Amino acid sequence: MYVIMVYDIKEERVNKVLKIARKYLTWVQNSVLEGELTRAQLEKLKVELGEIIDREEDSVIFYKLRSTAYFQKETMGVEKGGGEQFI
Amino acid sequence: MYVIMVYDIKEERVNKVLKIARKYLTWVQNSVLEGELTRAQLEKLKVELGEIIDREEDSVIFYKLRSTAYFQKETMGVEKGGGEQFI
Repeated sequence: MYVIMVYDIKEERVNKVLKIARKYLTWVQNSVLEGELTRAQLEKLKVELGEIIDREEDSVIFYKLRSTAYFQKETMGVEKGGGEQFI
Repeated sequence: MYVIMVYDIKEERVNKVLKIARKYLTWVQNSVLEGELTRAQLEKLKVELGEIIDREEDSVIFYKLRSTAYFQKETMGVEKGGGEQFI
């Protein structure tokens, strides 16, 4: 499935969360990653994130789509994404 | 159509961008809004944003879906959203 992940994480944990998310997904913008994942990969990602985030303070949203055919993406301004980009 | 909007905007412009976006969409998390828009409403939103953002520095991504039937949403941690919430 295709996953868009957006997160809102307290500063002290945000680098750890980003590091985990980047193992599975491509960074596209501040706090946003996306990519193709199997169900098992998504479960692993959620387990890893669950060990880091504070569920009282942090928030992670996954938008799960069957494929990229189900949405169109449009960017205004800078195209920041690119898996290899250092942020 | 259903629109998920994520933005990465320099601090001096971020409040203006959020104020515009909230006229059209519901805030769900830091830098993320979503909602049902007509094509005309999306165009108006883009025109308004275009007057504020710096296209060399800022980035706004719209994920456009035919309806909410085309994705599933899953949240870990805090559910921050809610149109009336003050942030």
